[in-house]
Amino acid sequence: MTQLDDLTRRRASQIVYQIFPERFAIGGGLSSAEKLANAAYAMPNVAKCGWDDSTLNQPWGQQFFGGDLDGIADKIDYLLDLGVTGIYLTPIFSAPSNHKYDATDFFTIDAMFGGEAALLRLIDTLHQQGMNLTLDAVLNHVSEFHPWFLAAQQGDPSKRDWFTFLADGRYLCWQDYGLMPELNLANPAVRDVLYRQPQSVVQYWLSRGIDNWRFDVAQDVGIPVAQEMAEVVGKAYPEAGLLGELNGFSGGWFQAGAGYSGMMNYWYRTAILAWLAGEIDSIQMNAAIQDARDAYGLKGLLCSWNMLSSHDTPRLITTVGNLHDAQLAMAMQFTLPGIPLVYYGEEIGMQGGADPDCRRPMRWNEADWNHAQRSWVKQLIAIRQQNTALQYGDIIVLGHRLAGNTLVFLRATDVPGEAALVVVNLADTPLASRLLIPYSHWYDGVPLRDALGGAPDCKMQAGSVLLQLPARSVAIYQAFEPYQNYTFFKPRNQ
Amino acid sequence: MTQLDDLTRRRASQIVYQIFPERFAIGGGLSSAEKLANAAYAMPNVAKCGWDDSTLNQPWGQQFFGGDLDGIADKIDYLLDLGVTGIYLTPIFSAPSNHKYDATDFFTIDAMFGGEAALLRLIDTLHQQGMNLTLDAVLNHVSEFHPWFLAAQQGDPSKRDWFTFLADGRYLCWQDYGLMPELNLANPAVRDVLYRQPQSVVQYWLSRGIDNWRFDVAQDVGIPVAQEMAEVVGKAYPEAGLLGELNGFSGGWFQAGAGYSGMMNYWYRTAILAWLAGEIDSIQMNAAIQDARDAYGLKGLLCSWNMLSSHDTPRLITTVGNLHDAQLAMAMQFTLPGIPLVYYGEEIGMQGGADPDCRRPMRWNEADWNHAQRSWVKQLIAIRQQNTALQYGDIIVLGHRLAGNTLVFLRATDVPGEAALVVVNLADTPLASRLLIPYSHWYDGVPLRDALGGAPDCKMQAGSVLLQLPARSVAIYQAFEPYQNYTFFKPRNQ
Repeated sequence: MTQLDDLTRRRASQIVYQIFPERFAIGGGLSSAEKLANAAYAMPNVAKCGWDDSTLNQPWGQQFFGGDLDGIADKIDYLLDLGVTGIYLTPIFSAPSNHKYDATDFFTIDAMFGGEAALLRLIDTLHQQGMNLTLDAVLNHVSEFHPWFLAAQQGDPSKRDWFTFLADGRYLCWQDYGLMPELNLANPAVRDVLYRQPQSVVQYWLSRGIDNWRFDVAQDVGIPVAQEMAEVVGKAYPEAGLLGELNGFSGGWFQAGAGYSGMMNYWYRTAILAWLAGEIDSIQMNAAIQDARDAYGLKGLLCSWNMLSSHDTPRLITTVGNLHDAQLAMAMQFTLPGIPLVYYGEEIGMQGGADPDCRRPMRWNEADWNHAQRSWVKQLIAIRQQNTALQYGDIIVLGHRLAGNTLVFLRATDVPGEAALVVVNLADTPLASRLLIPYSHWYDGVPLRDALGGAPDCKMQAGSVLLQLPARSVAIYQAFEPYQNYTFFKPRNQ
Repeated sequence: MTQLDDLTRRRASQIVYQIFPERFAIGGGLSSAEKLANAAYAMPNVAKCGWDDSTLNQPWGQQFFGGDLDGIADKIDYLLDLGVTGIYLTPIFSAPSNHKYDATDFFTIDAMFGGEAALLRLIDTLHQQGMNLTLDAVLNHVSEFHPWFLAAQQGDPSKRDWFTFLADGRYLCWQDYGLMPELNLANPAVRDVLYRQPQSVVQYWLSRGIDNWRFDVAQDVGIPVAQEMAEVVGKAYPEAGLLGELNGFSGGWFQAGAGYSGMMNYWYRTAILAWLAGEIDSIQMNAAIQDARDAYGLKGLLCSWNMLSSHDTPRLITTVGNLHDAQLAMAMQFTLPGIPLVYYGEEIGMQGGADPDCRRPMRWNEADWNHAQRSWVKQLIAIRQQNTALQYGDIIVLGHRLAGNTLVFLRATDVPGEAALVVVNLADTPLASRLLIPYSHWYDGVPLRDALGGAPDCKMQAGSVLLQLPARSVAIYQAFEPYQNYTFFKPRNQ
């Protein structure tokens, strides 16, 4: 078993809730109309919508509903009741659009969202409840309206080398979107202002009290810059989590020592959705889970974000087509190594196709909620928070050993008995199979119970167990103590 | 290749015969009636039986047939002829039952078995023939009639903390059997008398000449106690083997450095029996063998006991239902890494269900023997003793690479040419498959012969071999030298 430090355990024990701030809630009980009367929205071409409008179908960034940071703070009881331990906000820096990925100033919080004062109120509210906050940073590019770029374009010698201009006036920009000129990260001045100086973007907001950063497009920022950033920022803020976005397999980043504490685990998302859709079988599914363990390493894997949907993808239920499969997917999200990242509204079964449809305002009328889904998510959170193995246990992948169409993995810490066996039977027929479990601390006779309640109790029999699951179902087996005057898991065995 | 020390090689070259002393033989040619007239059996509720009685069907410990230690010594020629190198006795300390797991004194040998004098005679007899003796110790619990527990129960302050009493008078006991109060191993005085002092149970009997210990319920004794015991006892008796019982996967014990020289390999038993029964397929079977190699380590694996039946399980032939499958199982037992442990009577095909039926008196009338089974076991012993690779070679698992239902593994030492290829074809059809063998010292053209004689000779062909086996059969391929004036395996290549 890999030895883990306390910081890794704390990080791995989180459950993060992703919020698209413009669409979560409006502070102070205001209606959209009241909120959108604010001067911050007095721009040309702005579409002002009521919170319950369902005409969200235009792929532009100028449609507003009025969500803000005070709105999030107002919903702290909702978040606490759900059981998440932190939130991640898509960008909140000053920017004309609703999504704020087109920042014009990384050092101010957009007035639409309440400015810096609202951010500080939100941080206070979260920290009082033991929750933490992750902000979203883009190191690779800025808006074409960012003063840095405007100055560079106008020939300002102090900014010209912050970007890369070609002889004909064209400039390097993200995937040929002229709207997103790429920063010249080879320029020390750029790295200074982004993350090297104490007053740099990354360090400034940590000094104001945020807890973690999520960094856009790790592939464009590159490994050496990430290494330097992790070293500099890690020295000043050793507790801060630094999450990299890579929309694929992140093993190479960890193997190269890129410095991120974790990555967004799109790899798991790809595998889970492809498996549920029947595009891959259980051989590829189990292999993909093993690949991540091998290449991310246990620590990197535990501190990565397990996400199934986001503001950039269709919503989960919309993607998989039905609630049952969405629930299977979330069971995997919450039991595979890594920090579950729940996109706002998934817990109440919101639907939504590709952007902008996946960014509909959060539903606060409980009549609109899918209560079965909400119970499922709360149950998964409760199970995970009561089982250290699901939080920071290592993983042993076993499903490729079974015939059928099954993902099986054991999670276990180095404390004897802290373990969980997760079985997903995706076949259309029940599973009834003996499985040998190469784990030493579920002793002969230890009884196992499915925390989700769908599979019957079973029992360890000399290193093996007879699994019995309904068709297309999931079980999370945990050991329990059946005796009064005897305990299988003795303190002296730890 | 892992480098092995001489002690490991010596240990790994053993073949151990398990005896339940009350049921193996009576010394001095006495009949049961004559022996049971001894005062040692003068207790209430004792059932005295004749050796050939077949009414052994009550799950109690008070039925006696009169077996003893002199009886074992009298059968030394039988054991030598069979080819085993040592014996393991279930408990022989003073205790009222036939199984003696309810010891009332760990420092005396039960009078039924002949007392300490008989033990010393047995040790002498064994050592004169180069054989060794393993005794059975329980560190976790004692009988409720043990003087230690009686004193503690009566409030003796010197013994009260040797056990764990609850406020209401209940006490911790093994799996809620009130008959077996658990010792408080956190108490230094308990550890002193069990294994720390020179006159402790474990050290005292080693000082009297026994060679190894087998320790009950390793999961309850726990890792830290086992570590301390191995350190203390290992210093005083470095040759002594210390075997732990864990009825499952023991990898965690070796990885935690629990100190046992080996474990009872129930993991192999589970895998072999489940595979023969069709409960698992060859994917799981080969994976289970690989799991043990990975987690036990070569040394731990080689010094563990490969057992298929014991006084705690139904007999092998009874379990698998037919002689043929029992023979396949024993072929695996004798060729997989580890010390074969043969339960008395398996070599003559005795039948028996769960305890007490698996503890019938040994049959000494050759008319009762299954001679085909006896030949098979003697052949397996002879093959193993003539092939160092089967004794202490490393293992390369290959069977998962073949379609069908096949276990394949290569055993090889670090001496070029010391190797054996074991193939078990469990399919109901013959096997005819080319197998690539990633081993460098069976050179192109080396001929291979099945030591069991069931498969035709074959030949290495540039790193591969064409396997041909009958349905549901086993082959143990060994290389042989086909030339007169040439040798494939040159001394200078070692």
